[in-house]
Amino acid sequence: MDRRSFLKTSAIGGGAAAATSLAAPAVAQGGTTLTMVTTWPRGLAGVWDSVERFVNNVADMSGGTLTIDAKGAGELVGALESFDAVTSGQADIYHGADYYWVGQHPAWAYFTAVPFGMTAPEMMVWYYAQDGMDLHHELGEVFGIKPFIAGQTAAQGGGWFRNPVKSADDFKGLKFRMPGLGGQALAELGASVQNIPGGEIYQALSTGALDATEWIGPWSDEKLGLQEVCKYYYPAGFHEPGAALSVGVNLSVFDGLSSEHQAIIRHAAAETHQHNYALFIANNGPALKRLRDGGTQVEEFSDDIWDAFGAASKKVLDGFMDDEIFARTRESMEASMANTAGWVSVSDATYVRQRSRVNG
Amino acid sequence: MDRRSFLKTSAIGGGAAAATSLAAPAVAQGGTTLTMVTTWPRGLAGVWDSVERFVNNVADMSGGTLTIDAKGAGELVGALESFDAVTSGQADIYHGADYYWVGQHPAWAYFTAVPFGMTAPEMMVWYYAQDGMDLHHELGEVFGIKPFIAGQTAAQGGGWFRNPVKSADDFKGLKFRMPGLGGQALAELGASVQNIPGGEIYQALSTGALDATEWIGPWSDEKLGLQEVCKYYYPAGFHEPGAALSVGVNLSVFDGLSSEHQAIIRHAAAETHQHNYALFIANNGPALKRLRDGGTQVEEFSDDIWDAFGAASKKVLDGFMDDEIFARTRESMEASMANTAGWVSVSDATYVRQRSRVNG
Repeated sequence: MDRRSFLKTSAIGGGAAAATSLAAPAVAQGGTTLTMVTTWPRGLAGVWDSVERFVNNVADMSGGTLTIDAKGAGELVGALESFDAVTSGQADIYHGADYYWVGQHPAWAYFTAVPFGMTAPEMMVWYYAQDGMDLHHELGEVFGIKPFIAGQTAAQGGGWFRNPVKSADDFKGLKFRMPGLGGQALAELGASVQNIPGGEIYQALSTGALDATEWIGPWSDEKLGLQEVCKYYYPAGFHEPGAALSVGVNLSVFDGLSSEHQAIIRHAAAETHQHNYALFIANNGPALKRLRDGGTQVEEFSDDIWDAFGAASKKVLDGFMDDEIFARTRESMEASMANTAGWVSVSDATYVRQRSRVNG
Repeated sequence: MDRRSFLKTSAIGGGAAAATSLAAPAVAQGGTTLTMVTTWPRGLAGVWDSVERFVNNVADMSGGTLTIDAKGAGELVGALESFDAVTSGQADIYHGADYYWVGQHPAWAYFTAVPFGMTAPEMMVWYYAQDGMDLHHELGEVFGIKPFIAGQTAAQGGGWFRNPVKSADDFKGLKFRMPGLGGQALAELGASVQNIPGGEIYQALSTGALDATEWIGPWSDEKLGLQEVCKYYYPAGFHEPGAALSVGVNLSVFDGLSSEHQAIIRHAAAETHQHNYALFIANNGPALKRLRDGGTQVEEFSDDIWDAFGAASKKVLDGFMDDEIFARTRESMEASMANTAGWVSVSDATYVRQRSRVNG
């Protein structure tokens, strides 16, 4: 990514201006229907569940006076065109992962996941009880978007490998599929980082075009069949320790809604965040068990590799610190993370360790 | 508690029958107002925040067509009379901790917290993505209540002690304030277990009527001034690893609401669960730091003590296994906990350990 490009984009506020003139949700039969574009193939396990959960929450709570017509990727616009479709008023709302918009502004990454960032419970603390949501709205306002986190994959797996990795040196030249800032960190380690769509990963691994990949977690990865083309699975990864998904409403559309419809969108999104987190965790456990039973070797990166991930991630994040919003968002998030960890490490974490020891 | 008494109560379903004839929420000016009784002193930090959050969520999302008039403990009925007030139709809804109703049925404990039970994130998985909510509703139906978890204190502290405890033997004869099943477990260790209201704890510790107490967590405990009368604080405890709070609506009142008002109550409660969890964690960190800075000695129970907690807790829970609903709820919860831990221990927990190690 060209680090200059987002600065130009974020300075103009042109998205908001365009949206004001174009946006016009359909109003008929006493009800309002919002057109939603998404970054997901219709039906994608876990992720599409969060789309449906949000859509149903809104319809149920509004008694059908506010409904959402959700389109899969490619049905109205392509996955990565969702942001522009909403800022331009072609659609009213998107559901996606906000780190897809780092080309618009790098701070969007913080509202999905950053390397060495927050787990899902930590995200809840920052977003709902500290500055997270306000910072999200401040960033959205630059582009004429009202965003809310509205989905959560929980911790994403470290990846699938055709051969085990023993040290940081093993990443040199490794053809690894990982998008976003995590991918940039892997490139720092000398990996040949590729970003190909989910539907092409299986084929690329079978032919040797890829040596390794990350996708989401055991539940989703198993559906892609990655266990058939890679023997080694590393459940813990550095790149997306808790990936939030978001809705973003065209700001002038949002401002034109009644206060009860605004509240319904806000809380429908929050309920979806918690529910989707629960859904991924509930399904990851049994999937991991099936994978183990089917012969997948479950591995853990060495300390040496984690150290290299840490240094590379810091370097990537430091590279954006000349942007004021990015710097402020990062500082807020890191302070929150340290604060939460300070309590959780002596309470929940100690409890869980002892429960596991006592129960054997 | 007499283990026979709840069986008689739960067998009759009389609460539901009574509620049908008595319940009648106030309907005026095109809006419905529900009278809420609570088990909390008005304004109690963290806990009363969850009451207000839920009440505001409902009003905001319904555009004021459904409002809730929340009463503090003692304003309409006493704290522990809230359950009977709702089953009898004297009030429409309660907000409280469902383990206060273990005298009605021991399975209510599972919807707040049980010794060696779930952390708050684990509760989210069981309640929202597995059988938790359905089991809650099944139990509620016996009493004519529609319950939803609607608050979360996160892990409660292990307790405040006037003198440090070094081994399980130190609990023999210790005058310890702890309610519920956790208190019953402490009694198995030989403690002299007392259950006195929050407002009387400080005084009891200053006079030596108590040697130790648990309350909630650093945020709430600091407001009670426990650091002034106890030097030793154990942040990790066995008794309430994540305590959910609940609303319970009179079932015939709930059934009489429109489907959108029902959906609003359900999702307002879920949003409050996540938000309140975030609020407690956000405040516990800074409070713990202030306590440390003020001279509180932060300690950790020895493995020997944790082993004793484990054996005593198991004995207490096993004592209720002749009740079918209790047994089924326990089995469901323990299976969920094992499943979640199986994934989280190799993903999130490994990540958090490495992040902490790498960041130093």
